[in-house]
Amino acid sequence: MLTVYGDIRSGNCLKVKWLLEWLRRDYRWIETDVTTGVTRSPQFLALNPAGQTPTIVLEDGRALAQSNAILVHMGEGTALIPTDAYDRARMFEWLFWEQYSHEPYIAVVRFQRAIAGKGADEIEPRLIERGHAALARMETGLDGRDWLAGPGPSLADLALVAYTRVAHEGDFDLSAYPAVRAWVGRTEAAFGIA
Amino acid sequence: MLTVYGDIRSGNCLKVKWLLEWLRRDYRWIETDVTTGVTRSPQFLALNPAGQTPTIVLEDGRALAQSNAILVHMGEGTALIPTDAYDRARMFEWLFWEQYSHEPYIAVVRFQRAIAGKGADEIEPRLIERGHAALARMETGLDGRDWLAGPGPSLADLALVAYTRVAHEGDFDLSAYPAVRAWVGRTEAAFGIA
Repeated sequence: MLTVYGDIRSGNCLKVKWLLEWLRRDYRWIETDVTTGVTRSPQFLALNPAGQTPTIVLEDGRALAQSNAILVHMGEGTALIPTDAYDRARMFEWLFWEQYSHEPYIAVVRFQRAIAGKGADEIEPRLIERGHAALARMETGLDGRDWLAGPGPSLADLALVAYTRVAHEGDFDLSAYPAVRAWVGRTEAAFGIA
Repeated sequence: MLTVYGDIRSGNCLKVKWLLEWLRRDYRWIETDVTTGVTRSPQFLALNPAGQTPTIVLEDGRALAQSNAILVHMGEGTALIPTDAYDRARMFEWLFWEQYSHEPYIAVVRFQRAIAGKGADEIEPRLIERGHAALARMETGLDGRDWLAGPGPSLADLALVAYTRVAHEGDFDLSAYPAVRAWVGRTEAAFGIA
């Protein structure tokens, strides 16, 4: 059976969980608290030398890391990867953008506020500014569109919703981004995210 | 003809240039100096609302951004994307890891030192530490292997070599990473990078 090493508070890990449930695949979840140092243990580093969650172990014992790479691998052959070459390229554009320009701000501020317990005045202003830039870029991308890439929900929507839906836990007010807010609800409904 | 908006000093932009040349595709290069604010102009933001290079414009006028998404799009159907599903998944793992755990340290320190002209003592120690962690992770990944993913050179090698080959410009000494250093030479030879 497929095994997932993940922290249930992490959007990157939840992406994988949601996709496995959408695919109705059996899996074993091994809760892996990233704040305890367990991902720096020799056992964990043997699975993933980068020491990051999520890391999955396939049925044949081989490991795979990076949430969006896991989504792409498990999503192959499903309707979540657009068949049109340009739509598919845009899906990848959003997936790479998410890890470079969204997660390092939206997820990091939310972690510092909601999990590490920092006060609002302890957050680096640059992180907040770039988080808002990411939300503004999504608002533009959703102008006149229901989904980020292609005619229906794709891996791009699944990946981006993970931290966008909890952005308010980092004090990012989504009411300033109405298209993003509506898309969050649509995406949660499409993937059965409660 | 395909158009590339790129800054010739940027590894992210050079990845695209090298792939186009490897593919022997005609293209037009529009040199786009990211330090002048031109990527924040209304004309550029209409192409890419994220205001980042590289951005390409396809023959039909549609734009695409994110260096690794461009590589995946242009690399489809070539030997640079492994046919084995697991090898392909590992290629994606490296591509996402590159943007999240390598570029923000190796490329950023190199930019600050070699392009922005900062002194060695002006570099945030955390960036140097994480850059070395990225190189160590590559050294582990190349243990007993010629290429990062699959039996031959892939998009993962092309993407990772872009900033690794100029890491010394950010004072990262590759002599501590012999497998990485040998792989840089192999990858440059495979892609004809001078």
